[in-house]
Amino acid sequence: MSRGTAHRLLPGEAELRLEPEATIRILTGFLRHEVERVGWGRAVLGLSGGIDSAVVAALAVRALGPGAVTPLLMPYRASHPLSLTHAEQMLGLLGVVGEKIDITPMVDAFAQQSGATDPLRLGNVMARVRMTVLYDRSAADHALVLGTSNKTELLLGYGTLHGDLASALNPIGDLYKTQVRALAGPLEVPAGIRRKPPSADLWPAQSDEADLGFSYDEVDRLLALLVDARMSRAAVVRAGFSAALVDRVTRMVVRSQFKRRLPVIAKVSTRSIGWDFRYPRDWRT
Amino acid sequence: MSRGTAHRLLPGEAELRLEPEATIRILTGFLRHEVERVGWGRAVLGLSGGIDSAVVAALAVRALGPGAVTPLLMPYRASHPLSLTHAEQMLGLLGVVGEKIDITPMVDAFAQQSGATDPLRLGNVMARVRMTVLYDRSAADHALVLGTSNKTELLLGYGTLHGDLASALNPIGDLYKTQVRALAGPLEVPAGIRRKPPSADLWPAQSDEADLGFSYDEVDRLLALLVDARMSRAAVVRAGFSAALVDRVTRMVVRSQFKRRLPVIAKVSTRSIGWDFRYPRDWRT
Repeated sequence: MSRGTAHRLLPGEAELRLEPEATIRILTGFLRHEVERVGWGRAVLGLSGGIDSAVVAALAVRALGPGAVTPLLMPYRASHPLSLTHAEQMLGLLGVVGEKIDITPMVDAFAQQSGATDPLRLGNVMARVRMTVLYDRSAADHALVLGTSNKTELLLGYGTLHGDLASALNPIGDLYKTQVRALAGPLEVPAGIRRKPPSADLWPAQSDEADLGFSYDEVDRLLALLVDARMSRAAVVRAGFSAALVDRVTRMVVRSQFKRRLPVIAKVSTRSIGWDFRYPRDWRT
Repeated sequence: MSRGTAHRLLPGEAELRLEPEATIRILTGFLRHEVERVGWGRAVLGLSGGIDSAVVAALAVRALGPGAVTPLLMPYRASHPLSLTHAEQMLGLLGVVGEKIDITPMVDAFAQQSGATDPLRLGNVMARVRMTVLYDRSAADHALVLGTSNKTELLLGYGTLHGDLASALNPIGDLYKTQVRALAGPLEVPAGIRRKPPSADLWPAQSDEADLGFSYDEVDRLLALLVDARMSRAAVVRAGFSAALVDRVTRMVVRSQFKRRLPVIAKVSTRSIGWDFRYPRDWRT
């Protein structure tokens, strides 16, 4: 009963499949519900010009309406000019008023005072400066900060703690990069944004995949098998992934666990925060 | 068999009692153990001139030795001059080399670009600028960031998310302010630091207790009964606390829960970060 159009799936491909329209409905419902229960009704996010923040902005506008979402465009001197162009294009398509805040003077003041001048340290400073701008705006406007890190980045630790990893709500944190791409078309994110090579845009011509040393297509399939399907190292190697890649990715996931957890508090009392004093984020009495 | 020297304990006073020397042993053991298992062997912290960071610095030096601890002094233009004097006094007493980084240019660049000029917003910016300096130094020196927020501040939400609340390890997060004071004497923190009125030092003559509207002595006894002894509202009111204070403090604890939790990720897969993908901070395979 083979069908002429069937192609043999690559390992992990089935695990990454999703229904775009159903997923979009779930995520807009999540955003509406969570933003409403906090009682603020507004959201703020950083719009970089990349696909992840474009998808989050589109979800937020569907969930809350264009008047309740404030995207902040926060270019640095070395940011690719196309990033700002793409971010402005998204504002137009969504019918949303954004704001541009140039972070160059703040980042430069940092580099000068702290001596952080190499690209990696400077990249972390940029991410934390943007977080500071977003949280300042969050408190001033009573708007929740939306996270734009996808599941691939969160699992690999490919992000800055207390920087781009900081948010109140993250609608795409359980979607791998390739799954975010699958939502971008139905959400009408333009092809120019969808098809450009992913980049943290921390220095000219930076590329995520060159930095990481593997493609999102490959690592997403591997992570879906290791994390979601709970397959063993031996099983994914049998499925065709190289042992070197499996070990490297596993090490990245394990070593970045600290970015996905709260600080450790030394326990000395009968009830301690993070140990046995635990309530949901939006705890109500 | 009554003893002439006995005094009647205030409600909550018994719950706050601790053995200073035993607690210091537990906390230095915690710091040594946690810093060693990460494999870095070094710690960095912000030394403000106040009692909390003085106690953490003293604990860290006992645990790791003076050569493995880097206190950063990060004054702002409006900081009280005595803060820097007290921080420098601690460096001398501990025999530790610290570093001074003036955050004024970074904070001013922020205020200018973002329009954050009122004291509250500016205070949050200062806290996040200091976090950024500490985490930059943490990565550059392979030194863990030590938290200096006490249990009173953590429970009341009296701190800045992704600012002073950010750390890798917090040795005093399970000690109320009055319990931190009880350790300060045995740790040889000078009386000038121990006895001055607590202040976040965000603007001239700021006072924690004036900001909060109650004293640490009172609120610590109340929190120990509500949180640690799990007493009901009715029971603490019967014990002598005013209903208005109990309700106000309860509201502060509940409303600040978001500062003690990670972002909420929309769950759409079989295994999601923060939901069913959970390992300890220093997870080892």
